[in-house]
Amino acid sequence: MSVITLTTDLGYRDFYQAALKGSIISLLPDVRLVDITHEIPSFNIQHAAFVLQNAYHYFPKNTVHLIGIDTVFQEGNRYIAMKYDGHYFVGADNGIFSIILGENKPEDLVEIELMQDLRFLHFPLADILVKAACHIASGKDIKELGPAIESPVQKVTLLPIIEGNIIKGHVSYIDSFGNVISNISKELFNQVQRGRNFILHFKRNETINKMSWHYNEVAEGEKLCLFGISNYLEIAINKGNASSLLGLYPDETIMVEFID
Amino acid sequence: MSVITLTTDLGYRDFYQAALKGSIISLLPDVRLVDITHEIPSFNIQHAAFVLQNAYHYFPKNTVHLIGIDTVFQEGNRYIAMKYDGHYFVGADNGIFSIILGENKPEDLVEIELMQDLRFLHFPLADILVKAACHIASGKDIKELGPAIESPVQKVTLLPIIEGNIIKGHVSYIDSFGNVISNISKELFNQVQRGRNFILHFKRNETINKMSWHYNEVAEGEKLCLFGISNYLEIAINKGNASSLLGLYPDETIMVEFID
Amino acid sequence: MSVITLTTDLGYRDFYQAALKGSIISLLPDVRLVDITHEIPSFNIQHAAFVLQNAYHYFPKNTVHLIGIDTVFQEGNRYIAMKYDGHYFVGADNGIFSIILGENKPEDLVEIELMQDLRFLHFPLADILVKAACHIASGKDIKELGPAIESPVQKVTLLPIIEGNIIKGHVSYIDSFGNVISNISKELFNQVQRGRNFILHFKRNETINKMSWHYNEVAEGEKLCLFGISNYLEIAINKGNASSLLGLYPDETIMVEFID
Repeated sequence: MSVITLTTDLGYRDFYQAALKGSIISLLPDVRLVDITHEIPSFNIQHAAFVLQNAYHYFPKNTVHLIGIDTVFQEGNRYIAMKYDGHYFVGADNGIFSIILGENKPEDLVEIELMQDLRFLHFPLADILVKAACHIASGKDIKELGPAIESPVQKVTLLPIIEGNIIKGHVSYIDSFGNVISNISKELFNQVQRGRNFILHFKRNETINKMSWHYNEVAEGEKLCLFGISNYLEIAINKGNASSLLGLYPDETIMVEFID
Repeated sequence: MSVITLTTDLGYRDFYQAALKGSIISLLPDVRLVDITHEIPSFNIQHAAFVLQNAYHYFPKNTVHLIGIDTVFQEGNRYIAMKYDGHYFVGADNGIFSIILGENKPEDLVEIELMQDLRFLHFPLADILVKAACHIASGKDIKELGPAIESPVQKVTLLPIIEGNIIKGHVSYIDSFGNVISNISKELFNQVQRGRNFILHFKRNETINKMSWHYNEVAEGEKLCLFGISNYLEIAINKGNASSLLGLYPDETIMVEFID
Repeated sequence: MSVITLTTDLGYRDFYQAALKGSIISLLPDVRLVDITHEIPSFNIQHAAFVLQNAYHYFPKNTVHLIGIDTVFQEGNRYIAMKYDGHYFVGADNGIFSIILGENKPEDLVEIELMQDLRFLHFPLADILVKAACHIASGKDIKELGPAIESPVQKVTLLPIIEGNIIKGHVSYIDSFGNVISNISKELFNQVQRGRNFILHFKRNETINKMSWHYNEVAEGEKLCLFGISNYLEIAINKGNASSLLGLYPDETIMVEFID
C-alpha cells in the first residue's frame, strides 16, 4: 500500500482538507493517507518545513509527502516534485524545498508540467499537486511529471553563528507542550563543544549548564535543556510550559558558551 | 474499498468520534473512513450543510456520507438515507437534507426502519445511523433500509434577493483563513450580471469592483472578491483575515450592484 | 486488517503524532490506525483513562490500544502490555492501567522487555511501545513481550461514597458540549436507588429530581440529568453548555439523595 502524507494550513474545521482527501482517493482508491498536520499557521513555510523535516523520516521509504502551504497560483511560480533521502515531496516552489534540503542535494527535482491554464483554477492543490502525488504514489516515474530543474527557490533561514567559544542561535519552534526548540543542532553543538563544559544563556539572566537526556531528570517545575526528538537543542520545564513560564518565543536569541 | 465520510459536531477531544469509528469498523472491517470534520459548531445544521455540500463531490461516486449532527432521538423524528448525485447521505431528518438538495430531487429517499425501541438508546448515531451507513457501504440496496418517502423536512435558508440591478445576499460562512463566503453563487451572479460591471457593497462604505481569480492578485493586505473553491462569492484579504479585519461575520448583508 | 488505536497528549499541531504513525506503518504496513484522540491534556492520566475506557469497547476484539501519555523513561519505571476484555493495551505503567481495570483482573499482563538502553532514547513511545503494539497487532503472542507481572501500578481514584440514603460523588469530566459527567455509574445508582425517588443536589441550591433518557426531554436551555453514552450520571442542558452555565467543573461535589 503506497502512502501519501499531508502537511497543510487548511485546518480541520472547513471542507478543504476533506476535499483534498476526496481528490486523492478518487484517483488512487487504495492509497494510505496520513495527516502530518493541517494546523500549520497560515502561509508559514518555516513552521511547515520544521514539522515535515522532523516527521518524514519516520515513514517508509517512497512515501509521498504532499505540501499544501502557499500553493495559490501566481504568474511565474512553479510547482515541483522532489526525491530526497528516499522520500518524495510535492508542493509549490515557494522556498520550503530549500529548507527541507538544507545543505543536501536532491536525488531528483522536476518542475511539474501543467496541462491546464492555471489562471482559471481555484484549487491548484487538488488540481495540480494531487495529480502529481498520485502519479508518484502509483509507482510511476517522477521524471515523467516534467523537466528536471537545477535547484528549488532558496529561502533564507537564519543559521546559528559561531564566534570563538560561543554558538549564537535562536528559538525556532514552540511545540504544544511549550517546549522551546532552537535552531542549534546536536551535530553543530558536538562539533563546537569538543568535550568541554557549557553554559546555555537565554533571556536576561537565565542559564543552564547541564545537558539532560529526559524531561524528568530535574524536579517538576525546574528548567532543563536537552536534545529532544527533533535533534535540536531544546529548553524545557519538567511537566511545565517552558515557553510561557520562561517567556521564550520564536526568534528570541539563545547562546551557548563553551568553557575550557 | 468502500468509503464512509463523517461530518459531526462531536469534536476530537472526547471519545465520541472514536466510538463512532469503532462501531463502523466493527461492522465493516475494510471500509475506508474519512473525516470531513468533527468540528461543526454544536447543532449547527447550516454550517454542516455548507461543509458537506462543498466536500462530498470530491469523493468517489457511491461514497456514503454519515451526518452526525442533532441526531438525538425525539418522538416523531425520523432517520433517513438519501441517494443524490451518485452519493449516499445518512442522518437525522432535521432539515440538513433539504439544504444539501437545494432545488434538486434525490434519486432515492427512504426512512430508516427502526428495529429497536429508540427511547432507551443513548447513542442513535452509532446504533441506527452507523448500521444504515454500513448497509449501504457494503453494497446493499438503500431501499432495503425502509419505506420510500416523498421529501425530507424542509429547512428555510435565506436565498439572495434580486431587485432590479441588485443582488442582496448575506455572509454565510467564515473559513479558518478568515475568508468571508456569501450565499451568492457564481451561477446567480453570472445570470444577473450579463456582462456588466459591478460594485460589491458591504459594511457601511466598503466597495470592491473587480473580480479576482486568485487571492494574490492584489497586494498583501488588500481586499478582493472572487469565486473561491466553494463557487460562492467570497470577500478576502491577500494573506490576511478578512472577517476580523473588515468586521464581516455570518448573516451580515452584502450587496452586488450591476452597472450598465 | 488489524487495528491499532492511539490515545495521546501529543496534539495535532506538531510532528509527534505523525512520527508515531510513521513508525507504526513502517513496521506494519497494512494496519488500520484510528485516533482515539491526541488532545488529552498534557500528562493527564485520569482524563486519558476516562476517554479510553469509554471508547475501547466500540472497537473489534483484539484491537491494540496504544497509550501515549507520560511515557518518558524514568529509572525504575516499566512499560507494560495488557490483555483485558478481549482487547490489548500498551503503555507506560504510570497508573492508567489500574484505572482502566477498576475492580477487574486482566487476562494477561506483562512487562515489556527492553532490548535497548533506554537512558539514551528520546522517544520511547515510538521506540518501545510502537514495537510492542505492532508485535501484538501482527498476531504474535503478548507473552513473548516479556515476563508476566502481578498487577500494574495502582493509581488512587476517588470513588463515590455511600452514606445512608445518599451517594456523594464528584464531577470527573466535561465533554466538548459542556455536558458534566460524574463518577457515579448507572450500576451504583440503581443499586442504591432500589426504585425510590431521588434528588440530585449540586452547587449551593441546584436540584434535579427526574431522570431523562435524552437531552431533548426538557425545553431548550433547561437542565436535566441522565445516564449518557458513558453510563455515568451526567448533568446537561438541552442545547446548552451545562458546565459554564451552571458553573460545574471537574472535582466539584455532587450528591444524590434517595427518598422513601
